[in-house]
Amino acid sequence: MLGVDPGLTRCGVGVVDGVAGRRLTMAGVGVVRTPAEAEIPDRLVLIERGLEEWLEEHRPEAVAVERVFSQHNVRTVMGTAQASAVAMLCAARRGLPVALHTPSEVKAAVTGSGRADKAQVGAMVTRLLGLSAPPKPADAADALALAVCHIWRGPAQNRLQQALAARQPAPSARARRPQSGSPQHRTKGTVR
Amino acid sequence: MLGVDPGLTRCGVGVVDGVAGRRLTMAGVGVVRTPAEAEIPDRLVLIERGLEEWLEEHRPEAVAVERVFSQHNVRTVMGTAQASAVAMLCAARRGLPVALHTPSEVKAAVTGSGRADKAQVGAMVTRLLGLSAPPKPADAADALALAVCHIWRGPAQNRLQQALAARQPAPSARARRPQSGSPQHRTKGTVR
Repeated sequence: MLGVDPGLTRCGVGVVDGVAGRRLTMAGVGVVRTPAEAEIPDRLVLIERGLEEWLEEHRPEAVAVERVFSQHNVRTVMGTAQASAVAMLCAARRGLPVALHTPSEVKAAVTGSGRADKAQVGAMVTRLLGLSAPPKPADAADALALAVCHIWRGPAQNRLQQALAARQPAPSARARRPQSGSPQHRTKGTVR
Repeated sequence: MLGVDPGLTRCGVGVVDGVAGRRLTMAGVGVVRTPAEAEIPDRLVLIERGLEEWLEEHRPEAVAVERVFSQHNVRTVMGTAQASAVAMLCAARRGLPVALHTPSEVKAAVTGSGRADKAQVGAMVTRLLGLSAPPKPADAADALALAVCHIWRGPAQNRLQQALAARQPAPSARARRPQSGSPQHRTKGTVR
């Protein structure tokens, strides 16, 4: 699981291995940096190259990206939205599922409180992954927290989706009008 | 010159040939569309593919992208910022210069008023490029207007940059302190 805390100046990247309910381990952590004096298009190219290296080396099964809100500082948010677009693009281009989690979802997942501060998130990531010290900068720790959050939330979300999917065919199977093209219908037809 | 009016649902694309002071011609116009029901990461991949096709076919020397502001609708703006990030990335990855122009700069360039409406922009684009009818949808006309705007504004900006660049080396050449690592200094050393 690769977590990305998007940003134009610093893009935090963290790779976590494991499944919910078992001990998680850190496979890598770092930051993709771009020079503040460079033009935005060139910075986006640098972010793409940096993230591609991480994806190529770690071959994650999924990518979790922090969901961007535009309620904060306008200039920062545009840069964050652009960097997160590149992260989503890199993952989706490889056919990897992309999950978006809000900062408060991530904080709540790793600390129990959606209002936890940076230090608390860093401390919990350190403990959960059995690290010797909190990863720095904070963007790197946040990326690991995102990956942890997605591993823990993922199965619950999947179970919910499976439950919904399992219920979905029921009404259509009971429907009297034939639904051309629906796999459920065609399967039923074969069974008859 | 390729102009891009970024958007997740409709990304306007317009190609204009010519130089400032001469008659401009349209080489192509269209829209890259993505389905509203698709996930954002997948939509960004579709925008990348669509823009790559335009870049591959028309091989523009530069790309003009509409500058995104976040003063409007929050949800729309995030999508526009993400689509514009993909446009900037595609251009910069090919080494093409990317210019950003605000909507009012574009309107002022083609109609004389930064507050012109869509119809006015469409009418002027039609006239300037000698088209038989205004391009539709409006995103396509806006992309052409962006390209026209950049062709007209470009030379002035370039001249300014050249003038600044021409003045830049002078002070450093006259500077008394050696500037280690600066190409100017190393060249001077060799000359001595």
